[in-house]
Amino acid sequence: MAGSKYAYVKNFEIPDPLLPNTYMVLRVDGHGFHRFSESHSFTKPNDQRALELMDAAALAVMQEYRDIVLAFGESDEYSFLFRRSTQLYNRRQSKILSTLVSYFTSCYVMNWSKYFPSTPLEYPPSFDGRIVLYPTEKEVRDYFSWRQADTHINNLYNTLFWALVQQGEMTPADAHATLKGTVSGQKHEMLHSRFGINYNTLSARFRKGSVITRKTVINFIVWIDGLETPESVPSDEPDGLKRKTKPKVTLEISHVDIIGDEFWNKNSDIL
Amino acid sequence: MAGSKYAYVKNFEIPDPLLPNTYMVLRVDGHGFHRFSESHSFTKPNDQRALELMDAAALAVMQEYRDIVLAFGESDEYSFLFRRSTQLYNRRQSKILSTLVSYFTSCYVMNWSKYFPSTPLEYPPSFDGRIVLYPTEKEVRDYFSWRQADTHINNLYNTLFWALVQQGEMTPADAHATLKGTVSGQKHEMLHSRFGINYNTLSARFRKGSVITRKTVINFIVWIDGLETPESVPSDEPDGLKRKTKPKVTLEISHVDIIGDEFWNKNSDIL
Amino acid sequence: MAGSKYAYVKNFEIPDPLLPNTYMVLRVDGHGFHRFSESHSFTKPNDQRALELMDAAALAVMQEYRDIVLAFGESDEYSFLFRRSTQLYNRRQSKILSTLVSYFTSCYVMNWSKYFPSTPLEYPPSFDGRIVLYPTEKEVRDYFSWRQADTHINNLYNTLFWALVQQGEMTPADAHATLKGTVSGQKHEMLHSRFGINYNTLSARFRKGSVITRKTVINFIVWIDGLETPESVPSDEPDGLKRKTKPKVTLEISHVDIIGDEFWNKNSDIL
Amino acid sequence: MAGSKYAYVKNFEIPDPLLPNTYMVLRVDGHGFHRFSESHSFTKPNDQRALELMDAAALAVMQEYRDIVLAFGESDEYSFLFRRSTQLYNRRQSKILSTLVSYFTSCYVMNWSKYFPSTPLEYPPSFDGRIVLYPTEKEVRDYFSWRQADTHINNLYNTLFWALVQQGEMTPADAHATLKGTVSGQKHEMLHSRFGINYNTLSARFRKGSVITRKTVINFIVWIDGLETPESVPSDEPDGLKRKTKPKVTLEISHVDIIGDEFWNKNSDIL
Repeated sequence: MAGSKYAYVKNFEIPDPLLPNTYMVLRVDGHGFHRFSESHSFTKPNDQRALELMDAAALAVMQEYRDIVLAFGESDEYSFLFRRSTQLYNRRQSKILSTLVSYFTSCYVMNWSKYFPSTPLEYPPSFDGRIVLYPTEKEVRDYFSWRQADTHINNLYNTLFWALVQQGEMTPADAHATLKGTVSGQKHEMLHSRFGINYNTLSARFRKGSVITRKTVINFIVWIDGLETPESVPSDEPDGLKRKTKPKVTLEISHVDIIGDEFWNKNSDIL
Repeated sequence: MAGSKYAYVKNFEIPDPLLPNTYMVLRVDGHGFHRFSESHSFTKPNDQRALELMDAAALAVMQEYRDIVLAFGESDEYSFLFRRSTQLYNRRQSKILSTLVSYFTSCYVMNWSKYFPSTPLEYPPSFDGRIVLYPTEKEVRDYFSWRQADTHINNLYNTLFWALVQQGEMTPADAHATLKGTVSGQKHEMLHSRFGINYNTLSARFRKGSVITRKTVINFIVWIDGLETPESVPSDEPDGLKRKTKPKVTLEISHVDIIGDEFWNKNSDIL
Repeated sequence: MAGSKYAYVKNFEIPDPLLPNTYMVLRVDGHGFHRFSESHSFTKPNDQRALELMDAAALAVMQEYRDIVLAFGESDEYSFLFRRSTQLYNRRQSKILSTLVSYFTSCYVMNWSKYFPSTPLEYPPSFDGRIVLYPTEKEVRDYFSWRQADTHINNLYNTLFWALVQQGEMTPADAHATLKGTVSGQKHEMLHSRFGINYNTLSARFRKGSVITRKTVINFIVWIDGLETPESVPSDEPDGLKRKTKPKVTLEISHVDIIGDEFWNKNSDIL
Repeated sequence: MAGSKYAYVKNFEIPDPLLPNTYMVLRVDGHGFHRFSESHSFTKPNDQRALELMDAAALAVMQEYRDIVLAFGESDEYSFLFRRSTQLYNRRQSKILSTLVSYFTSCYVMNWSKYFPSTPLEYPPSFDGRIVLYPTEKEVRDYFSWRQADTHINNLYNTLFWALVQQGEMTPADAHATLKGTVSGQKHEMLHSRFGINYNTLSARFRKGSVITRKTVINFIVWIDGLETPESVPSDEPDGLKRKTKPKVTLEISHVDIIGDEFWNKNSDIL
């Protein structure tokens, strides 16, 4: 075959399988989103549309990649947890990383105009990604706690910072100086006393980030001819036809605490 | 700091630097593009619009990432060569791979409507990517020869296959059976005798793929006040102002042979 | 400093940390030991001296490297299990692998003459090694079950094979042919009926391999002046001196089943 | 087969091929040799016997592994360069690293008593090792220059340090303090003026380290009956027997400069 004398160059491709039976977390991060958010006039400290667009891209990724069992998003980043035993693309690192980051990006750009109907894209947004392996449940929980704690810390800071700038008419430099060294309690107090903001009543999306889980609902009947009927609908079962219920999986997005035990007890199938 | 007790999970991120001073080739491939090309009614055997869209995305990538010195595209894939000494993202593999595949995807989706104005995207296209390292010039040349030989082999086959199907009214199965075992010369002959097609007169884009290089042109004058004037334009140089020529780099796309020496002699700055 | 212009070559050393909090198993294997065992006239099917020499080297390795919690040896191989959280050499793979294989080899050669007093080394024996990571307890147990099952299979085969050759005066080729396709029960039966050997009464070392564990004995008293006295020895405690017991760790070698639960229940501190 | 249900644990072995067509350098280093050299009363600043023992081990390694084209040793370390295209053990990193470090260690221990006839080994010496890849000739030369420059720097320092301690009766702390901040020329001068030592007349082995090359000599005749005769020896060629010359490869150890071009010009087959 023509070309076969060059095919040896394929031997330079080094295999990159991920260790089996470990939890894989893929984190996608906006690349240069400080500039991107300014170019596209994102609302500060949080832009509801931008967050919803991130959620939409993440939902699409989870719809497409069924081995993802949990996703958590905040700001311009999203983390995806795969079930431990996933064999997606034979666990080849580059293949998984590149394909999913690409798909996420594609969904983000395709859905842009839905969330920003009057703001055309100035230039192509991009995301970087990384895959981290965790051997145990504890580390997985701590990973997601780490991200949600980060959400909290950043959002409290940013909420107060932008209040000082937008309502308090401080310069950004003065606002940073004012916040320097303050602890969490002081920030809550400043928000309340200066701006009448009760932090805990702000949108849970801003304070907790977005959590996507799969919800398994066993409420469908599958007739043996393949037709599906919701279980709740009374039906005349044709004679001689067996029926069985089939689990139906849907995605559910919420803005809840994932640091404490409650979430994990309720979603005990994740780990 | 809140959250710091979880920060240890960062230690599970394994560093992934690429060996210094090796040539890095990043290849981006359409993911499931057989289905994608059918869903979006790509013309067979080649869709000019689809190829131009790939070129547009690749040009944007090279515009953004200055350490890419050569790109070659065919069908739904593109290969990018970095200069040997690039320090892009400290040569971290995951960072380079994910960011560039993401940027390519973003450009592809953003530019879609320009090339397919009457064909809305049915679903989000995605690309996978991989990075391969080559230690010597010879392997780099052989890599690009491998891809261009592949272009030739596939295009000759596909051109004849679709002629048999579209003009010869064969079923795809019959067309494959007819082509089985034929060598290059026989395919040229069949194209000519049955369909009056002289293969060598077909579009070079289809036969050779797309080659993007940087063209350095030293023909601009930069006045010390920052204004640039093309050197060819006669100008009255203001008294006391120094002038100097500045190399201007532009991207050039062509559809030429990159297997023989001629291309590499003419572009001796690539390797 | 002279030489500093060359020091950049150090940048080509790629970091190779092993994933944290996973079980590390290092397996050392005799390199070309088929030939080595013939050159040094090892007794067939098992050479007690050679096995004891392997055990001696493994004991020395465990004495030196305290993070090894279990070792299993058979024939010319030994597997070492590190505690999950070991930080030995910062978990650098090459450093751990090379240093321990080197130390094992060194102990093997140094102790050779003790176990083979009348057989000088004909040439330098060597071992290869590999490190495998396991994320969970189950895989660690299955790894050691895999090695001990291997011991059993090989030893049963070899015992019968060598009986056929040595006592049955078969050629090796005939012996292999005779054994081909036989199952375990048939081999037991042949050993018994033809050679009067009850396999289960053979040395446990041959049938089960060697198992090295750490035995923690809290029976020492450490006076604050640093002197240690066995707890059982009655002692007059000097006035004003505090005493505390110190756990004393010793190594214990045995030839027991490690596939069933009993061993792991008794040694619950290993995993 | 019994045991097959455990065999899945083999899937956790991750392939580790080294990038093809790159220069591989394996460096072996004495592990804890500061203590080892004291325990075994090595002569300071250089122990001729210890260096010759290192050389003997390195020669044995090169005798066994024919793809090593150059070795350089100093103090308690040795570096081995493989020819670029070596396929040793399919370029598997762990296999190459562990086997060669093991073999080196084995040779070191086996040959100990030959070089230290009246000094028994107090405990098992060990070595660590690492493999570094270099893509070009320049880096290979710079790597070896780096090691030989290191030899020079250390030997000059140590020679003067031990002269101050042994002949000058300084404490080690005072000697270090005296040397602190001195440049090369000052050290030469101190050696000469205080101790009458002309550094450049010291043993080349101490100043330059050890260099092992393969010397190919085409001067043997191989008769077709397999007998070899040096070509220079006149011989009656039996009628009807064909003869051909065969290249004979021998190892050559020297203590020469490998930083300048002369060595590489003379040994142009290394790179």
